[in-house]
Amino acid sequence: MKTLSVALGDRSYPIFIGTNLLSSPHIFSPHIHGQQACIVTNETIAPIYLEQLKNSLAGFNIATVILPDGEAHKNLTTLNEIFTALLTERHNRTTTLIALGGGVVGDMTGFAAASYQRGVNFIQIPTTLLSMVDSSVGGKTGVNHAMGKNMIGAFYQPQAVVADISLLKSLPAREVSAGLAEVIKYGLISDYDFFVWLEKNIELLMQGDEEVLSYAVLRSCENKAEVVVQDEHEGGIRAILNLGHTFGHAIETAQGYGNWLHGEAVAAGMVMAADLSMRRGDISESDLRRIIELLQRANLPTKAPENMTAENFIELMGVDKKVLDGRLRLVLLTSLGCAVVTSEIDKSLLLQTFSACR
Amino acid sequence: MKTLSVALGDRSYPIFIGTNLLSSPHIFSPHIHGQQACIVTNETIAPIYLEQLKNSLAGFNIATVILPDGEAHKNLTTLNEIFTALLTERHNRTTTLIALGGGVVGDMTGFAAASYQRGVNFIQIPTTLLSMVDSSVGGKTGVNHAMGKNMIGAFYQPQAVVADISLLKSLPAREVSAGLAEVIKYGLISDYDFFVWLEKNIELLMQGDEEVLSYAVLRSCENKAEVVVQDEHEGGIRAILNLGHTFGHAIETAQGYGNWLHGEAVAAGMVMAADLSMRRGDISESDLRRIIELLQRANLPTKAPENMTAENFIELMGVDKKVLDGRLRLVLLTSLGCAVVTSEIDKSLLLQTFSACR
Repeated sequence: MKTLSVALGDRSYPIFIGTNLLSSPHIFSPHIHGQQACIVTNETIAPIYLEQLKNSLAGFNIATVILPDGEAHKNLTTLNEIFTALLTERHNRTTTLIALGGGVVGDMTGFAAASYQRGVNFIQIPTTLLSMVDSSVGGKTGVNHAMGKNMIGAFYQPQAVVADISLLKSLPAREVSAGLAEVIKYGLISDYDFFVWLEKNIELLMQGDEEVLSYAVLRSCENKAEVVVQDEHEGGIRAILNLGHTFGHAIETAQGYGNWLHGEAVAAGMVMAADLSMRRGDISESDLRRIIELLQRANLPTKAPENMTAENFIELMGVDKKVLDGRLRLVLLTSLGCAVVTSEIDKSLLLQTFSACR
Repeated sequence: MKTLSVALGDRSYPIFIGTNLLSSPHIFSPHIHGQQACIVTNETIAPIYLEQLKNSLAGFNIATVILPDGEAHKNLTTLNEIFTALLTERHNRTTTLIALGGGVVGDMTGFAAASYQRGVNFIQIPTTLLSMVDSSVGGKTGVNHAMGKNMIGAFYQPQAVVADISLLKSLPAREVSAGLAEVIKYGLISDYDFFVWLEKNIELLMQGDEEVLSYAVLRSCENKAEVVVQDEHEGGIRAILNLGHTFGHAIETAQGYGNWLHGEAVAAGMVMAADLSMRRGDISESDLRRIIELLQRANLPTKAPENMTAENFIELMGVDKKVLDGRLRLVLLTSLGCAVVTSEIDKSLLLQTFSACR
């Protein structure tokens, strides 16, 4: 097992990365400070892992909340179910919430922990590759509003994150790929050596090799932690973590959320960002080819959906209004392994990218 | 105008206390850092003060949310109305929420500010004496859950509090009295000199003399701030601010919320705490008489409701279970002007207090 510390002063916490952690009571007990704890999970994960986790928490007074699965339920109404369960079981300010699930469960449980009686402790057990390498670092918690994703929430750090690589065995291949999109992102924005390592090991990752997966999760979390400790509340540099996301959001919106997985949209979006970076002369054509090739080997889309026109992107990204007055900010590559956030965007090059990436 | 600084490190903020502040644009503009601001108020306050505040904010891009009045609406559903308004008006992370109202509006607006896009700035303009001396210091924000008051919320500090004493002119006399209960509390728990000053000035306060009201608000906020800076997240000493509240909550619950005002229940509760303190030998009979007399001069109840029996208190305060295992913690007086939190409670003395205070 490897331990990474996310260094955020008195909000610092460890990320444990290894195998068979869910069945190791000694991993959890030092991070539960009272007698009460409440596991929050969903109806997909509960049948597979809930009993195993409960066994590891024998000796604590455990409540359980099983939420419906999916982004559609990430809202204040579902959040309130967590509060109702905590109040029904008379959990007080010493309780610890434990998120067992992917990003949706983690975001909601984190926000419930931030808000229940004005703040209780929580532990995250991400069950997807995406949540291991993304939401487990940085403390972004929250729910969606009908008018926008993640519009309601808090920056709130957990006591600990337990990334049990063994849980990835049950993850569908398509979701492994979607997680790899974010893994590859770290190589692109801040870690050329990791990018090269990924070029060597992508097939082993796809096959679920636990050793290479552990390393990829560790290295991803290290990269994200380095950015987050510089900018916990996303005032500046943290935005580079959004490489491919502005293009990707346009794709997700156009296709309807859930049709393309987030990681898939980000993959295509990263190619678009890289394409624009090449047109600006910041990376070479061969760099772009390496990026596309790696994403393809990870079974990820590298083009926008065929049914999306340049006009769709212009509208969904607000290009006409935003480019003019400098409000369109994109993350672009200055080299393989280095990203910047810029609002100096040449509209004609952007249009070329829209055409080229379909 | 007097300015008090609440010294909470990088979360420090000023409380401005004076007259005619609502119509002074220069009070607000230094604390609004973007172009957008959103006034949150209720249907009782809006007709009286909303236009005046809007005039002071000319030049900013102002949205307005008018909530229904009353504790019954302090919940996640009403909170969501604030988010909907912010999203409809496309307010971004640079917006500032401005709470114009009493404790309910302040608590909800503060929590909306803590949660909207994971945190935006807010300014509090308390319109009641109670909210000026209580919720404007300390950063407790939140909403009620059907199963408990203030169960969902955050500790979140405002950019500034503007306590405009002139607004108290429109406050019903009964609410002035209820606010004075908390003012008197500060004298009892930590400031004997202030208690003596209140004995001299209580009639002027009741008559709405702006100079003595300003002083009483300032001195109350100073007393609360001194406690809060020692214990922002209520891990210990902050609990002394709850003098009279455990008894008071029992009264509020028994009478149904809203029948007794919070300050009225606290007044009777403080007499009960003082009575128990006397029976323990910590304050004298004449101290107790002075407390009762001051509260009576402020038109506040000094006895529990006649229809409440000792058995009611025993049940509502969970005496039988809690006293035995030390979980009943009460704030008691060790002298006039000094309070402690204790779980060492003699049940027979407590029963005497229940009987004596009806």
